[in-house]
Amino acid sequence: MKRILNLLAIVLMTTAAMMAQDKKSFTLEDLLPGGNNYFNLQPKNIQGLTWWGDQLLKPTLEEVKTIHPKDGKETTLFTLEALNKALESVGINRVRALYTLNYPWADKTLVQLPKSQRYAVYNWETGAVTTRNDLPKEPYANVDLNATSGNMAYTIGNNLYVNGVQVTNEPEGVLCGQSVHRDEFGIHKGTFWSPKGNLLAFYRMDQSMVTDYPQVNTSTRIATLEPDKYPMAGMTSHKVTIGVFNPATKKTIYLKAGDPTDRYFTNVSWSPDEKSVYVIELNRDQNHSQLMQYNAETGERMAMLYEEKHPKYVEPQNPITFLPWDETKFIYQSQRDGFNHLYLFDVTGKEIKQLTQGEWLVKSIVGFNQKTKEIIIMSTEISPLQSNAFAVNTQTGKTRLIGAKEGVHRIQLSGSGKYVVDSYTAHNVARSIDIIPVSGKGKDLNLLKANHPMEAYNMPEITLGTIKAADGKTDLYYRLVKPVNFDASKKYPAVIYVYGGPHAQNITDTYNYGVRGWDIYMAQLGYVMLTVDNRGSSNRGLEFENVTHRQLGVEEMKDQMKGVELLKSLSYVDADRIGVHGWSFGGFMTTNLMLTYNDTFKVGVAGGPVIDWKMYEVMYGERYMDTPQNNPEGYKNSDLTQRAGDLKGKLQIIIGGNDPVCVPQHSYAFLRACIDAGTHPDYFIYPGDGHNMAGRDRIHLHERITQYFEDFLK
Amino acid sequence: MKRILNLLAIVLMTTAAMMAQDKKSFTLEDLLPGGNNYFNLQPKNIQGLTWWGDQLLKPTLEEVKTIHPKDGKETTLFTLEALNKALESVGINRVRALYTLNYPWADKTLVQLPKSQRYAVYNWETGAVTTRNDLPKEPYANVDLNATSGNMAYTIGNNLYVNGVQVTNEPEGVLCGQSVHRDEFGIHKGTFWSPKGNLLAFYRMDQSMVTDYPQVNTSTRIATLEPDKYPMAGMTSHKVTIGVFNPATKKTIYLKAGDPTDRYFTNVSWSPDEKSVYVIELNRDQNHSQLMQYNAETGERMAMLYEEKHPKYVEPQNPITFLPWDETKFIYQSQRDGFNHLYLFDVTGKEIKQLTQGEWLVKSIVGFNQKTKEIIIMSTEISPLQSNAFAVNTQTGKTRLIGAKEGVHRIQLSGSGKYVVDSYTAHNVARSIDIIPVSGKGKDLNLLKANHPMEAYNMPEITLGTIKAADGKTDLYYRLVKPVNFDASKKYPAVIYVYGGPHAQNITDTYNYGVRGWDIYMAQLGYVMLTVDNRGSSNRGLEFENVTHRQLGVEEMKDQMKGVELLKSLSYVDADRIGVHGWSFGGFMTTNLMLTYNDTFKVGVAGGPVIDWKMYEVMYGERYMDTPQNNPEGYKNSDLTQRAGDLKGKLQIIIGGNDPVCVPQHSYAFLRACIDAGTHPDYFIYPGDGHNMAGRDRIHLHERITQYFEDFLK
Repeated sequence: MKRILNLLAIVLMTTAAMMAQDKKSFTLEDLLPGGNNYFNLQPKNIQGLTWWGDQLLKPTLEEVKTIHPKDGKETTLFTLEALNKALESVGINRVRALYTLNYPWADKTLVQLPKSQRYAVYNWETGAVTTRNDLPKEPYANVDLNATSGNMAYTIGNNLYVNGVQVTNEPEGVLCGQSVHRDEFGIHKGTFWSPKGNLLAFYRMDQSMVTDYPQVNTSTRIATLEPDKYPMAGMTSHKVTIGVFNPATKKTIYLKAGDPTDRYFTNVSWSPDEKSVYVIELNRDQNHSQLMQYNAETGERMAMLYEEKHPKYVEPQNPITFLPWDETKFIYQSQRDGFNHLYLFDVTGKEIKQLTQGEWLVKSIVGFNQKTKEIIIMSTEISPLQSNAFAVNTQTGKTRLIGAKEGVHRIQLSGSGKYVVDSYTAHNVARSIDIIPVSGKGKDLNLLKANHPMEAYNMPEITLGTIKAADGKTDLYYRLVKPVNFDASKKYPAVIYVYGGPHAQNITDTYNYGVRGWDIYMAQLGYVMLTVDNRGSSNRGLEFENVTHRQLGVEEMKDQMKGVELLKSLSYVDADRIGVHGWSFGGFMTTNLMLTYNDTFKVGVAGGPVIDWKMYEVMYGERYMDTPQNNPEGYKNSDLTQRAGDLKGKLQIIIGGNDPVCVPQHSYAFLRACIDAGTHPDYFIYPGDGHNMAGRDRIHLHERITQYFEDFLK
Repeated sequence: MKRILNLLAIVLMTTAAMMAQDKKSFTLEDLLPGGNNYFNLQPKNIQGLTWWGDQLLKPTLEEVKTIHPKDGKETTLFTLEALNKALESVGINRVRALYTLNYPWADKTLVQLPKSQRYAVYNWETGAVTTRNDLPKEPYANVDLNATSGNMAYTIGNNLYVNGVQVTNEPEGVLCGQSVHRDEFGIHKGTFWSPKGNLLAFYRMDQSMVTDYPQVNTSTRIATLEPDKYPMAGMTSHKVTIGVFNPATKKTIYLKAGDPTDRYFTNVSWSPDEKSVYVIELNRDQNHSQLMQYNAETGERMAMLYEEKHPKYVEPQNPITFLPWDETKFIYQSQRDGFNHLYLFDVTGKEIKQLTQGEWLVKSIVGFNQKTKEIIIMSTEISPLQSNAFAVNTQTGKTRLIGAKEGVHRIQLSGSGKYVVDSYTAHNVARSIDIIPVSGKGKDLNLLKANHPMEAYNMPEITLGTIKAADGKTDLYYRLVKPVNFDASKKYPAVIYVYGGPHAQNITDTYNYGVRGWDIYMAQLGYVMLTVDNRGSSNRGLEFENVTHRQLGVEEMKDQMKGVELLKSLSYVDADRIGVHGWSFGGFMTTNLMLTYNDTFKVGVAGGPVIDWKMYEVMYGERYMDTPQNNPEGYKNSDLTQRAGDLKGKLQIIIGGNDPVCVPQHSYAFLRACIDAGTHPDYFIYPGDGHNMAGRDRIHLHERITQYFEDFLK
């Protein structure tokens, strides 16, 4: 009997092997962005869905259709041909595709065209095209167009313009109308129109006192200097002020915020009546934030409405949001109870109540349903791996799920807040797109259920699990990828892919648990691939994140070593062949792991690594590490040049030759330290590239990373 | 009988093996400069031998002795103690060692002390110390002290000073009193005292119009720019003029040479009467040189005494030299008959005769014997691998060998030219130092015969041979190093070490044929090491060198492939495991060979390589390649970025991060081209290092190079 079972097992295994053989193998071209077959293997999608009021628009190659939210009936709104005919008649460039048009007027049959069509507005009912005559001849950028007023802000060089009028006239080294503070604190732009578009708040950043980092462009006939203002931790930083420009009077005032030295001005927003500007101000230590209200006409400070302190850091990332149905109340987002939640305040700064609570966090406010007086948010209420839409009842604080319970959702709310179009993936859902009534009443309308796009390929097994963190109590999520054609009796090499820094999460309930294309490729080559989201990473709350404060790397590495314990517990993992790879913070982690646990890790590839936090910039660096002056021990302990002599395994450092984020000095310092210590890292540079490699360079990069493990870990 | 012989062979082999086992193995510390045991394994030497008139001085730790040239009797001249006592009495720093003192006055008991003793002069008979009071307080450099007049020239920053008087007052970007033309054309300094030291000719170089190469210092708190004026081939070059300063009148005149644009001013020298300055001027094309005579008082051009043209290039490297016994005649050195030889001219520019001739070359004029009216030269008359001293009879042109017939000699001529002290090595002579009467009459006096310093070590067999060049007729020298404990029945990997460029020769009749320490190390690891001096390299005459003109790399590589043929003909070489390594021009050759003969070379390490000659500097680059404008085809064919896609083997590029000679742009351009072509070179940088690695970095570098061959060629 046993023999027959064995025989049967062989037959089954052989069949499985044969089936596996019938399936295709991946190349990097299939699996990585930049690869020539990458898009073909991505789950199907519907491009360019967008709301026009409560009507969902679906652009195709030839026309824009409306989809009726109830029955899904499609009606043609206008055609590409008609649009282009109208544009031609007024001498404007043809539109090539309909996927990126804007419909900011819910009540008008108007579409806003992009830059290449000079922001013209097309009326699909009348066929009329409204053009702008105030566009500059010089190259311009940072365009911010207010649909209500039609006012347009933009920058030329370092100065700000509105409707053809020069607003600022600053020398080089002073930037106006652009993002400031190196895009930290949720800042991504430098202009903020008042609700009706009558006034423009804008950033002015004087960085003339900031030291240049000498970036070099080696692609010119002879290499040329392209200096970049880079304030390093503990060094002199830039100074930010906020102006308010009135297009009607052409006058600018500046908010009277006092000396801007060593302060951050974040999350600029407006009162609904356009009379006040709100700013969340933060000290350089980043442990004290204050919500300030300024008079938009005089610049006078009107009130300090709310403040927050924390022994480690506070990190305001969201502007206040007024309730659309009550202009006397706004929502403030805070992590003060350990998780990002919504708090309701009145305009005097009186805290009315905490709107949401629980051991989960609000990821964003999407919008409102005016009728039901609900706030639509994305949150991790169901699982930290997920992002689901909920309607929050402002009276009771109760939340109501919108859409499927699983997965990571991206939603767009219709004009009135009555519907969402919801696109989501989950570990076993390639993509689903649905129109869902926010009320929960009425039928969902499915627009797409994507097939599994890699079914023709020989896929590895991808599993999710949890382990205990090094603190012995916190659950950490991991994603394990087994080799393709897995054979439990074999011993496989294993590679940990790590990021480990704040504001990132590698494992989510997205398709295949967010597995990386390279993980699949390595699994195909016979590696076990593991990723663990250690303490310090995002979406698990403040304490989970800030345990790393003043000692970046230490707790993160301890958690990664729990991942190593997991690997070692697997009978099919060869504990003598464990490698590690990561980029940016993950490059720091990789290098640090190679030095700290140099008997564990045989091979590492560290991309764009931070080597010494005092060479990193002020905003991000000092939040987590304080300054080198007041945390010398912490900086020294995390300075990897100090331990260059501990390198035992094979470590390759790879950088973009012009990385403006983690400047090349990091890796040069590390190489110099290793040379002086007599150790031998390997090195590669992608000349001209920045902090990450894109397009074809990304393919080349992963060939390179793969080859390194193949050469030295196999 | 045969069996007995076999047995005997086994016994002998075993004995040899046992003997070999008794001997020590090398580490890189033993074999490379910078290694901590390097000096112990160098042949013994006598430091600091120097002439005082016709008396040879031999410094020891405690005293300076004279050696009698006839019987070798040593007499103490003065002691360190006495010298330091005298210095202390006038408040000057103590002298630590006696090895680097100068004795410029043959007839006076005076020694000239170095910078640390403020150029004081010590009289060892009277004990008196003469000090200088005109030394500047600022840091100064380029000191040029004329012993006859006592006048001292030096530079502070970019300006020239003499005896405390500021001679030039130029803005940054104009260098005075320093070497010009990037040290090409035999130029190594910027000041030239007239014979009696009454007038100073000096270079002034305006490089304000030259593009900066943006070198970056990454060792500062934040990286800083250290721009370097670098005129690239075909681009705007600097402008050089020559001034004459009169310390008596404090007046400066400039030679009226006309517009200096695109011209080289080389080999500055003086007439014995101090009235004329001679300059060999060269056009930017470097194919037309003119010997010019200028009035040192007025700067007027007096005469064009001699000119030379060549369809490829002329390269003046030696100033004219007047006969000490006839101030109306001077020697001009020229390669015009294909080899560098001496020509006698009178002061009117009339050519009297060719003094030396033959298919060998004069390497340098050492001096004269006034009594016998002989010129003492070094030449390759015996062999191109050697450098021997000869006395040339100015009447007959006959040459008389001074010293041993073998080897590479370095001599110092005594004050009157009666004696030389000759230090030489040959392939089987570790070092010999002798006092030799120039006349050949009288006995040589041996001062040192050095033992073989590596006798305790297991040495590889090092042999010299010749092969035919790719032209089928020219003999090329090669040096072959067999693996330690060689076994002819084995198959060994082989590595070619290559330089291949002009002005260098790797194989000479020096100790062990000039074998490199790394060659020995690799032989110990089981590699066959081969070096071939291809056409284009030095000491073989003009045609041998200039066959490479306008097409650097092409003929040189063909010759290296003859070396490969040799390797493949050796039964013990594994033709599938051939590697190549070289630095600078040798890095260019290595990269080029890896791309061009990509089926032959499996592994290469290219250090500080030229990748594209249009990124190399004007003087050297345009001599061999002309300009990119007038030789576009030649530049394109030798631009290795064009063939980055041909890379098949493993190639590691290594550079000094601040290489000022072959700027980092070369390797960056190559990496970028390889990335774009999808090929995979490896890369390493020594941050802060220049064109070569010295000291401990050199050890690290060779560990790295070695490991690469061990990883991929073994």
